[in-house]
Amino acid sequence: MDSKHIKYFENLIGKDNAKFDKAHQIAYCYDATKKRYEPDGVLFPRDENDVSEILKYCNENKIIIVPRGAGSGFTGGALASGGGVVLSFEKHMNKILEIDMQNMVAVVQPGVINMDLQKAALEVGLFYPPDPASENYSSIGGNVSENAGGMRAAKYGITKDYVMALRAVLPNGEIIRAGKKTIKDVAGYNIAGILIASEGSLAVITEITLKLIAKPKFKKTAMGVFPSVNSAMNAVYKTMAAGVTPVAMEFLDSLSIKAVEQKFNKGLPVDSGAILISDVDGPNLDVINEDLEIIKNCFTQNGAIDFKVAKDDQESADIWFARRNCSQAITMYGSLKLNEDITVPRSKLPELLDKISQISAKYNVTTPCFGHTGDGNVHTNVMVDKSDPQAIERGHRAITEIFKATIELGGTLSGEHGIGISKAPFMHLAFSDGEMELFRSIKKAFDPNNILNPFKMGL
Amino acid sequence: MDSKHIKYFENLIGKDNAKFDKAHQIAYCYDATKKRYEPDGVLFPRDENDVSEILKYCNENKIIIVPRGAGSGFTGGALASGGGVVLSFEKHMNKILEIDMQNMVAVVQPGVINMDLQKAALEVGLFYPPDPASENYSSIGGNVSENAGGMRAAKYGITKDYVMALRAVLPNGEIIRAGKKTIKDVAGYNIAGILIASEGSLAVITEITLKLIAKPKFKKTAMGVFPSVNSAMNAVYKTMAAGVTPVAMEFLDSLSIKAVEQKFNKGLPVDSGAILISDVDGPNLDVINEDLEIIKNCFTQNGAIDFKVAKDDQESADIWFARRNCSQAITMYGSLKLNEDITVPRSKLPELLDKISQISAKYNVTTPCFGHTGDGNVHTNVMVDKSDPQAIERGHRAITEIFKATIELGGTLSGEHGIGISKAPFMHLAFSDGEMELFRSIKKAFDPNNILNPFKMGL
Ligand SMILES: Cc1cc2nc3c(=O)[nH]c(=O)nc-3n(C[C@H](O)[C@H](O)[C@H](O)COP(=O)(O)OP(=O)(O)OC[C@H]3O[C@@H](n4cnc5c(N)ncnc54)[C@H](O)[C@@H]3O)c2cc1C
Ligand SMILES: Cc1cc2nc3c(=O)[nH]c(=O)nc-3n(C[C@H](O)[C@H](O)[C@H](O)COP(=O)(O)OP(=O)(O)OC[C@H]3O[C@@H](n4cnc5c(N)ncnc54)[C@H](O)[C@@H]3O)c2cc1C
Repeated sequence: MDSKHIKYFENLIGKDNAKFDKAHQIAYCYDATKKRYEPDGVLFPRDENDVSEILKYCNENKIIIVPRGAGSGFTGGALASGGGVVLSFEKHMNKILEIDMQNMVAVVQPGVINMDLQKAALEVGLFYPPDPASENYSSIGGNVSENAGGMRAAKYGITKDYVMALRAVLPNGEIIRAGKKTIKDVAGYNIAGILIASEGSLAVITEITLKLIAKPKFKKTAMGVFPSVNSAMNAVYKTMAAGVTPVAMEFLDSLSIKAVEQKFNKGLPVDSGAILISDVDGPNLDVINEDLEIIKNCFTQNGAIDFKVAKDDQESADIWFARRNCSQAITMYGSLKLNEDITVPRSKLPELLDKISQISAKYNVTTPCFGHTGDGNVHTNVMVDKSDPQAIERGHRAITEIFKATIELGGTLSGEHGIGISKAPFMHLAFSDGEMELFRSIKKAFDPNNILNPFKMGL
Repeated sequence: MDSKHIKYFENLIGKDNAKFDKAHQIAYCYDATKKRYEPDGVLFPRDENDVSEILKYCNENKIIIVPRGAGSGFTGGALASGGGVVLSFEKHMNKILEIDMQNMVAVVQPGVINMDLQKAALEVGLFYPPDPASENYSSIGGNVSENAGGMRAAKYGITKDYVMALRAVLPNGEIIRAGKKTIKDVAGYNIAGILIASEGSLAVITEITLKLIAKPKFKKTAMGVFPSVNSAMNAVYKTMAAGVTPVAMEFLDSLSIKAVEQKFNKGLPVDSGAILISDVDGPNLDVINEDLEIIKNCFTQNGAIDFKVAKDDQESADIWFARRNCSQAITMYGSLKLNEDITVPRSKLPELLDKISQISAKYNVTTPCFGHTGDGNVHTNVMVDKSDPQAIERGHRAITEIFKATIELGGTLSGEHGIGISKAPFMHLAFSDGEMELFRSIKKAFDPNNILNPFKMGL
């Protein structure tokens, strides 16, 4: 990077906050994709005005800006794949500004860690439901920019369902507000709506106002064991259609079960075809027990060979152990994980899982699946040996076919992880030329010079 | 309109569906604003392809298109204020295409009447919560385009919370899909998000996929009587912050109460300062009774002088009668109603109502207020004599000050009715030049020739 630019940034926010050394280039070159792209430098703005000045300067000088949360993204959104400077909120813009109990609202800076907000809300008896598995390190700015989901989405929805208002900075440096600390606001275009899940490509989010809800009073965990994936998938959608809305309805296939059991020896039913884990919450135990009864009936009618309800928190944690650790355990099937988060309408889950197994057989790859089936989201992991280029090639072909099958079933390329660079090559499977053209003209409306996280989302 | 254009439309969709006669110009010239603008003609497309062909032609020939639902809008969105042709879905594109019980989803055409969808859902044991007071005639296309709220918003949210996917036609004739029949979808920009509440100015919505939920099992209605508006407004937000989420928390001030009583003689407490009406629902009666206990305590602690719970449906309907009829009853205060639907964070309600009463006194106008206080939304009705230009002028000045006070309290110009032409002059109070500029560039990205409902929203 031109030393003139470096000087400008150092002058603007101080040498401590404008880093162009190798150590920083390396420290900010990766995310959970494990791909690496070294940025020219890393900027740590102290406040929204810094963000505004930085963007204005970059816009005038056509310098690429890549906003970055915790770098836990699965699709490369925070990677400087086209060079430029990374904008990080982790150093200064990481404060919970307000927990407003009267309106049940939190106001946070983008660098706040998801779990820190969950805890702060719980301390005053309130509840922030979105809980991506990365809750202990991912940032709210990243959660909003990817529209992160989590274990509780089946009942409580995802990040977008909690965003009431945003402050953001446009590439030209203009500071905008979108939405209000009100439940309803229909004045002007829904800018907050389009910034959610925009992967840092339209504006830099500098403040987030989030809805909090009353903490649910009681919770119980149940587990069903099924002879086949197909029977479990039927049970999922039939249970939801029976009028129960479990907090979670999570799924492990037999490959995932076997992997967890081999690694952790927890006495899981290794001969079964699938497990469903369901949390139910409610205002009193009668309500919960009624729901559990319905779940039990639906599970049994769809062939469950075992059903149990956790007696206490310990048993609940034991049941959840398998789900929480399967991502790590399945690495036994291959040193390279090609993981996707395809999502279909719930009633299409049986068909989707059938297809995945046929496609895996065809390409001779092992594909353990697990995930948030309560919202139709299946984490599909094609496992291959990273030293075997042919296997990797077969894996990629399998993924392409799985994407096609997903789209045919009315599903989406991504339920929660976004497109970034990883899924950009598949956008044409899901969107028409006219739709891609519309995305590009929206991008241009916000960012005419294409300085903000360009080359992402296939644009 | 040039007879060449008329011929084109008649050829395309048939003479029965392309109407350029005076009768149609008059029949489609109004909405609930009572303003009148005669369009050149009215088109009744038979399907999405017709919409596409019409838009392509209008785009090439720079003919203005005004999409129209039932014309129940309060801000003139469906008015042909700049001439052009009205596009109506009431004749052909008015079918419920699917109620998918397995995925708990409805797929409808834009012309479907809200209540028809509610009924169709109930018939299969499902529930479509958004219920604007215009539910018996307003269309889903209009509801989505205004992001309509309703009586149940405090607990169940508004239209946007139920839109899963849209099909729409861009001004260039391109047919696009946005969203999926899945709970989660983060691939590409959230086009559905920005089309909601866009007042027909970005694209024509041709199909809507809506989330349905399980029907709540039990419901009860309660009413609290308060000595003053202030005490009632305190009770509203303190009740919600106590962890209850009532389905509805509706409010009438003393002017509204007196008007209903004078007109209908129902034995309402005419000496009181305000009434709150609250519906509570839940999975069993214990839950409901617990909530009612909390509500009673909060009401009493904030000065309620009376509290009662309806014993049966009849008593519930009696309580609701006042709320359902106040809009009509308050016309006794003036022949012209300048009604606004300002919304503030709930905790600011006491201050907002104080301000409204000060401003009304200052301008010597009568301003009965009622509304959806559970979500901070106050229907503010400045009542004046339509034959008195000075009173009208004072009314408009009062409204301007009320808007300013609302914005200062962190509120919005519109909680549910939109901007249209009525509130366009006030957009500068709520949005910066940079924000307005952004709106305009989004409008341009979708509609470069400005043919789709131009001159709305202050753009
Ligand atoms: C073990 C593991 C488990 C996971 N589990 C889940 C899960 O259950 N559900 C789920 O949805 N995801 C999950 N993820 C993915 C990831 O955690 C989420 O996408 C998360 O939201 C990313 O947050 P981040 O702070 O790490 O953002 P980053 O990865 O740093 O950035 C993500 C995107 O957001 C943009 N961005 C960040 N901050 C801003 C800002 N202030 N303004 C504008 N753009 C910004 C970046 O440019 C980038 O495009 C998981 C990841 C891991 C590693
Ligand atoms: C007595 C009464 C009570 C009301 N109560 C409420 C209430 O409680 N809550 C509330 O929110 N509103 C309420 N309203 C306002 C109004 O009913 C709503 O705004 C409603 O959503 C409008 O629907 P409509 O079908 O009448 O749309 P219209 O008035 O015909 O149109 C509204 C807007 O939508 C656009 N539009 C319509 N269809 C399409 C389409 N297919 N594609 C693109 N754009 C389209 C139009 O161009 C216009 O800008 C009330 C109105 C009345 C008269």
